[in-house]
Amino acid sequence: MNGRPNPVSLRVVRAGIDTYQQPVVYMHKDCEVCRSEGFAALTRVQMSVGDKELIATLNVVVDDHLGADVVALSEAAWMAIQPEPGAYAVFHHAEPPRSSAALRAKVFGQRLEDADYLALMQDTVASRLSDIELAAFVTACAGERLDHAETTSLTRAMIAVGQTLDWGEGPTLDKHCVGGLPGNRTTPIVVAIVAALGHRIPKTSSRAITSPAGTADTMEVMTPVELNLAAMRRVVAREGGCVVWGGNVRLSPADDVLIRVERPLDFDSDGQLVASVLSKKAAAGSSHVLIDMPVGPTAKVRSNAAAEALTGRLGSTAAALGLRLAVHRSDGRQPVGFGIGPALEARDVLQVLRGDADAPADLRERALDLTGELLDLVPGSVLGQGRERARETLASGRALAKFYAICEAQGGFTEPTLAGHRAEILALHTGRVATIDNRHLAKVAKLAGAPAAAAAGLITAIRIGDAVRRGDLLYTVHAQTRGELKYALAYARAHPQIISVAREAP
Amino acid sequence: MNGRPNPVSLRVVRAGIDTYQQPVVYMHKDCEVCRSEGFAALTRVQMSVGDKELIATLNVVVDDHLGADVVALSEAAWMAIQPEPGAYAVFHHAEPPRSSAALRAKVFGQRLEDADYLALMQDTVASRLSDIELAAFVTACAGERLDHAETTSLTRAMIAVGQTLDWGEGPTLDKHCVGGLPGNRTTPIVVAIVAALGHRIPKTSSRAITSPAGTADTMEVMTPVELNLAAMRRVVAREGGCVVWGGNVRLSPADDVLIRVERPLDFDSDGQLVASVLSKKAAAGSSHVLIDMPVGPTAKVRSNAAAEALTGRLGSTAAALGLRLAVHRSDGRQPVGFGIGPALEARDVLQVLRGDADAPADLRERALDLTGELLDLVPGSVLGQGRERARETLASGRALAKFYAICEAQGGFTEPTLAGHRAEILALHTGRVATIDNRHLAKVAKLAGAPAAAAAGLITAIRIGDAVRRGDLLYTVHAQTRGELKYALAYARAHPQIISVAREAP
Repeated sequence: MNGRPNPVSLRVVRAGIDTYQQPVVYMHKDCEVCRSEGFAALTRVQMSVGDKELIATLNVVVDDHLGADVVALSEAAWMAIQPEPGAYAVFHHAEPPRSSAALRAKVFGQRLEDADYLALMQDTVASRLSDIELAAFVTACAGERLDHAETTSLTRAMIAVGQTLDWGEGPTLDKHCVGGLPGNRTTPIVVAIVAALGHRIPKTSSRAITSPAGTADTMEVMTPVELNLAAMRRVVAREGGCVVWGGNVRLSPADDVLIRVERPLDFDSDGQLVASVLSKKAAAGSSHVLIDMPVGPTAKVRSNAAAEALTGRLGSTAAALGLRLAVHRSDGRQPVGFGIGPALEARDVLQVLRGDADAPADLRERALDLTGELLDLVPGSVLGQGRERARETLASGRALAKFYAICEAQGGFTEPTLAGHRAEILALHTGRVATIDNRHLAKVAKLAGAPAAAAAGLITAIRIGDAVRRGDLLYTVHAQTRGELKYALAYARAHPQIISVAREAP
Repeated sequence: MNGRPNPVSLRVVRAGIDTYQQPVVYMHKDCEVCRSEGFAALTRVQMSVGDKELIATLNVVVDDHLGADVVALSEAAWMAIQPEPGAYAVFHHAEPPRSSAALRAKVFGQRLEDADYLALMQDTVASRLSDIELAAFVTACAGERLDHAETTSLTRAMIAVGQTLDWGEGPTLDKHCVGGLPGNRTTPIVVAIVAALGHRIPKTSSRAITSPAGTADTMEVMTPVELNLAAMRRVVAREGGCVVWGGNVRLSPADDVLIRVERPLDFDSDGQLVASVLSKKAAAGSSHVLIDMPVGPTAKVRSNAAAEALTGRLGSTAAALGLRLAVHRSDGRQPVGFGIGPALEARDVLQVLRGDADAPADLRERALDLTGELLDLVPGSVLGQGRERARETLASGRALAKFYAICEAQGGFTEPTLAGHRAEILALHTGRVATIDNRHLAKVAKLAGAPAAAAAGLITAIRIGDAVRRGDLLYTVHAQTRGELKYALAYARAHPQIISVAREAP
């Protein structure tokens, strides 16, 4: 045992406590392990059950709810270990993670090398770094603190600690939106058109991080998205494209862990963003990638200068990884489509694919712009013809047919339904819509329950520049519970400037 | 209710789970509050019990250990609320803390103003910032990211959110060591001499953060240190000095919260360090402060350049606060005294005060240096005479008598005892002691159980420059349990370079 004392073992039981992704173990304060090892609350402990190992955070039980001969595992710890009935666990103090020195160096402003980032990402996916350490890492990489070469190193490390897909000969297309624009749900449309044209586009999407809906959340309203890799391969082999949740495919799993701490902090930095996006794309086996980058004062990218900086960083890392990449800069001043929230965005997507007369024109035009630019990237294409081919494919109904076929292959199509609780937000005076605050509007949708409540969110009725009269509808809030509707309304009413209406000069 | 829905209330019970200082509440996943409010694991919830409010992190119980009509409080949440028997709690989503925007700005490298730091520290002490947000704040302030003016702003904010003491007319003396040097336990000696000379020195000390012993831990081996403010005032009124734990006095409580996240991260930054030290000193009503700053490759301050930078930052903030401050730079290449760990350091302190023939000379000389410089700071003193006055006071036994009197006033004196489990670390070859790694040596003492196990730690037998033969004693490890002794030994043996012995040229 390498000089270590004979460990005392504890019987493993399930605590039945959900602590999100961070593994927690519960021991009684008087148990032999706590006493002999000198464990206390928040000690990082290394647990071994058979040949499975896990580092977890200790919470100490000080009353009689737990026996002194057992250890109780939080849901995350239980899932990671999946113990046999009656299994026993032994414990040690967790050694400081190998990447501690690199983390400390980064916090104090030093440049790190490939090997440092690899160690950090290995410790990240093995849950050897606590949430506090991860928060320090994410903060230390924020802003300009990660240079271009470091961004590439981090990206390579994130790719290296997960699996990577290989789709064989020929180009594999992909698109990604850097986010921050509510309702900008072009992916299902782009995938349907591109696949209908015979190209390969195996799209993995994320769930919402800080927004009211991610593409995976929206797609899940219409079809199963939690496919494993074998199922995803079957869909792509049959239909050329898919839209599945990336979480089951374990592409860049480090990214999923980092997002756990980025979510409550509600900030993304350029370096993390590039590493997050491009590690997923490279691991997914993509060769030609289009990035949608909405720019606006309340979008994720707030200015042209910020867009330049992010584009430069994306370009340098993509080049280092051998990816062909184009960035489409788009209007990020206001939402796209009418709906905000998983089901309400799915409704917009279907209206565009179906060619409905009242489909949101802005969503359709943006999807065509993006598809056109992506098609133009493909070797052998005639530059500038992509958009017209996309338009024809959508108008002909072939994109809709392909979308249904993809949904069938993923497990069947379901029509979205609306939520039972609704309330309207009206203009307080007559004038012209001057600005829309995407962030606060997204917040209303989140308070209404999105994305956990799939039908929750809102439907906007106006766009910047529209003339409105006092009492006209600005947007409708949808919620699945009365409590959430009231929360969202209280917030919306406390923030009338979310949609600002400028009085016209007399 | 300000547009909010009628809240559902849950009966409050004690979970009996120690999550350290972060308040956690446990609810069943099917409880009315979770469903109506859309709460999930790690949601930050605002709890009201009568007129008491608390923001806590939610953990969700997914089995039948908890009823759907109760909420269970972790120890930290229970202590903060102290509910009456049968109390009920209502819950809301916690609003984002007011200081979120300032935190985000700091993470992205902006300078903050007085009002920003005040908002951050108000949210810090009110537990409105999660550990993840606190980790981001501490990281964003690391290195050179906090300028001198910001350091002063942060210090003022930390003073403002706690109570401050006023000792009336005349100078109030204080000393502080920036730490990182094991065994450097001069404070009890300095206080005893200064108070014996009739000066006022109401010392509040901390427990260990990342070290094997803090002054409060060492002092607690000999006398109670958890005095409240009234008790501390009584001791100082009677004896002129005290050495008590600062935690009960609530001076700069924000510092105690920040330390919670700094401890697992194991890093201090200059700005945080200055704010931590000077907020405590100013809040304690000190007017004349001596800072002991050991410098050495494995001390907290590693180089003369780092010492210059820290001294400059201390000086500028002290001047802004109206404190008279001197910095004593000392040798930080190796431990001071023989013992490392609460009781073993207490033993050294008593030997110096008692004038024992085998008392550690380095600890005695350093305590006299510091006391001399502190006395020289006092208005009306003759510069350079302080050290001789200190020496006389120690040699005469008046310092020892004062020390006993202070301990009596704090609740009685107890002689330290030794731990039951010991093992020796011997020189592996003949030569001369070249270097001592303070950090790894401290780590051995911590693995042996210090500071939680008060008698645990180690006793060094050598100093840099000493000639040793193969098999000579380098240090003795002391532990209160066999398990801890074995841990510490395994680590010590795996790291023979903790005390490096250079072979002599033949």
